[in-house]
Amino acid sequence: MLERYGHGGDLLTAQETFGLPKEHFTDFSSNMNPLGPPACVREIVAEGWKDIHKYPDPAVRALRGKLAHKYGVDPESILVGNGAAELIDLIVRVLKPERTGLARPSFSEYEEAVHKTDGKLLNIPLLAGNGFALAESELDRVMSHTDLLFLGHPNNPTGRLIAGDVLDMLLRSKRRLVLDEAFMDFIEDEQSHSMLPLASQSRDLIVIRSMTKFYSIPGIRLGFMVAHPELIREARRLQVQWSVNDLAQRIGCAVLEDTPFEEASRRWLREEKPWLSAQLGSLGLEVVPSDVNFLLFSFPKATGMTAANAQQLLGQQGILLRDASHFEGLDERYCRVAVRLRADNEKLVAALTMILDAFPVSGGRGGVHHEA
Amino acid sequence: MLERYGHGGDLLTAQETFGLPKEHFTDFSSNMNPLGPPACVREIVAEGWKDIHKYPDPAVRALRGKLAHKYGVDPESILVGNGAAELIDLIVRVLKPERTGLARPSFSEYEEAVHKTDGKLLNIPLLAGNGFALAESELDRVMSHTDLLFLGHPNNPTGRLIAGDVLDMLLRSKRRLVLDEAFMDFIEDEQSHSMLPLASQSRDLIVIRSMTKFYSIPGIRLGFMVAHPELIREARRLQVQWSVNDLAQRIGCAVLEDTPFEEASRRWLREEKPWLSAQLGSLGLEVVPSDVNFLLFSFPKATGMTAANAQQLLGQQGILLRDASHFEGLDERYCRVAVRLRADNEKLVAALTMILDAFPVSGGRGGVHHEA
Repeated sequence: MLERYGHGGDLLTAQETFGLPKEHFTDFSSNMNPLGPPACVREIVAEGWKDIHKYPDPAVRALRGKLAHKYGVDPESILVGNGAAELIDLIVRVLKPERTGLARPSFSEYEEAVHKTDGKLLNIPLLAGNGFALAESELDRVMSHTDLLFLGHPNNPTGRLIAGDVLDMLLRSKRRLVLDEAFMDFIEDEQSHSMLPLASQSRDLIVIRSMTKFYSIPGIRLGFMVAHPELIREARRLQVQWSVNDLAQRIGCAVLEDTPFEEASRRWLREEKPWLSAQLGSLGLEVVPSDVNFLLFSFPKATGMTAANAQQLLGQQGILLRDASHFEGLDERYCRVAVRLRADNEKLVAALTMILDAFPVSGGRGGVHHEA
Repeated sequence: MLERYGHGGDLLTAQETFGLPKEHFTDFSSNMNPLGPPACVREIVAEGWKDIHKYPDPAVRALRGKLAHKYGVDPESILVGNGAAELIDLIVRVLKPERTGLARPSFSEYEEAVHKTDGKLLNIPLLAGNGFALAESELDRVMSHTDLLFLGHPNNPTGRLIAGDVLDMLLRSKRRLVLDEAFMDFIEDEQSHSMLPLASQSRDLIVIRSMTKFYSIPGIRLGFMVAHPELIREARRLQVQWSVNDLAQRIGCAVLEDTPFEEASRRWLREEKPWLSAQLGSLGLEVVPSDVNFLLFSFPKATGMTAANAQQLLGQQGILLRDASHFEGLDERYCRVAVRLRADNEKLVAALTMILDAFPVSGGRGGVHHEA
């Protein structure tokens, strides 16, 4: 398996596993925007490295200013982090919840952070039968027993936004809520879904954003958190000095102003996600409806195919997908793939077609009709 | 004051304070090697940024391999961090000492890390009268009351290595000891002083190294820790995923092989430190003997000059020094300056000469004879 360190996008493990140079993989296992990084990143790095002999601004003043302006919140409500992963870790260490409710399957870092502080987890199952939507009834069962809810909005690996009425109920409940909006910038009408502006004024709501997915810069690490200034100060106190490197700060400032990149990215996704989703569907795969740039699907039982098998067979061809069976709540037939550019997506569809046709267990796609 | 965030090298605060663009400062307040960064950094960044859309290796395999080779320790004994600051924080969180002994004045991050875990501090004073050397008698008084000693080797801001016999005594005592060797690579016979190889086998000794000072790359953040593999695993468990960005990993691999840079740096320091030290001495300043690339000095009482005054007066001329009075155990007359290239060092000496001559309190350098 490739998820040795708990995540997708581990190209070095792929290289060790499949014996291909890591440059040769087409990676559907990490959810990056294939249009990125924006062109300005090249210029920023070409100039910015000259200041590598200086410390980063410890207070990340320029980037916090730009984020404050873009999202209409106070800079004192913003903490920039060494990737969203650092902020997930910090907020759990600040809040020290005894019992955290997680709607699973979900991003493994929430669990990790809770385990590190010896907190207990309460499971809020997202059910396949319900399209993995967060149901009010499931929340009701658990909410009164938790002192924190940690939810993906939209959620990873399911790709689903929390429905408006469920979100309203959560906010009305005045329970402490962390929303991970790592993929929110992929949403067409982001403003009407993001809870970010609300978080700066509330003592109960914290919003975490990643900047690495939409701008495709995971190599340099960048995320931010919006919360009440008091919480931000507490988290800042626990944060390691100079945690956000200087190039990340500069790149963050530049990409925020790249509106054409933002528009092109949404145009691409508007076209490409339905296409890939339909193609996977026509292979007989069970595709979960997604609000973002990745798709969760499962192999029908009749095919006999598992995610582990598929990862192995595609990996040999230089195609990486995420074996999603490692997520709590998903069985061995679930995979997650990022939506990429058309040529890559076609490669994925062709490779899946081939392995399903050739797979020895059931001698084919188990009667599923092939229309691709 | 410029140390708003507890450290030197904060050029943005300098810009805000003195109204000069931050590029215009000659910075003696952070202890970077002025020969750095090595030329290879430019090439690495020019190529490496192209992989910014990929995640960093979560296990930092290539760099750990190179470090293991260079220092003759097992890769499993090495944890790479987002700067040494992250490793200081992590090791204190792993060890959770109740009472930590600090030889002060010392780097403020040790205290910060101990405060964050609600530990107590026991002070081991480094005395001016003793040239700020760590004395066995002072250690004896405190050691049996601590469960951790956290010491700089060489120490910052004093610039002193721990003497061989004191170090032997510490190791024989089998008490838990963290040595911060952030400036060890500046030491001419590093191998005979560094405790790094010992740390990989011991359960009592942990060594932390920075790579940002010697290679002058603080903007990108890089450090590593050597300890028993069990401790390394515990620290790794608390470390945030992908904490070390991809460019830092690549740069780390490249600079380690740059032997000519290493030799040139030591040649420079061999010549320049005694020169600057003598110049400062000839201005009547009391200079602490230093084993490394920075000098701690104090203004004689008769001059009436304080570090805060000097920082203000020099800052207006675009020269930054560290007001060392913020270090526990130093009074208001202490400053710290990095050794830089000759032209810069001459600028510093000239500026100090001028402010001492002009300083109104005592109407000059209080009778100290000027030979510069």
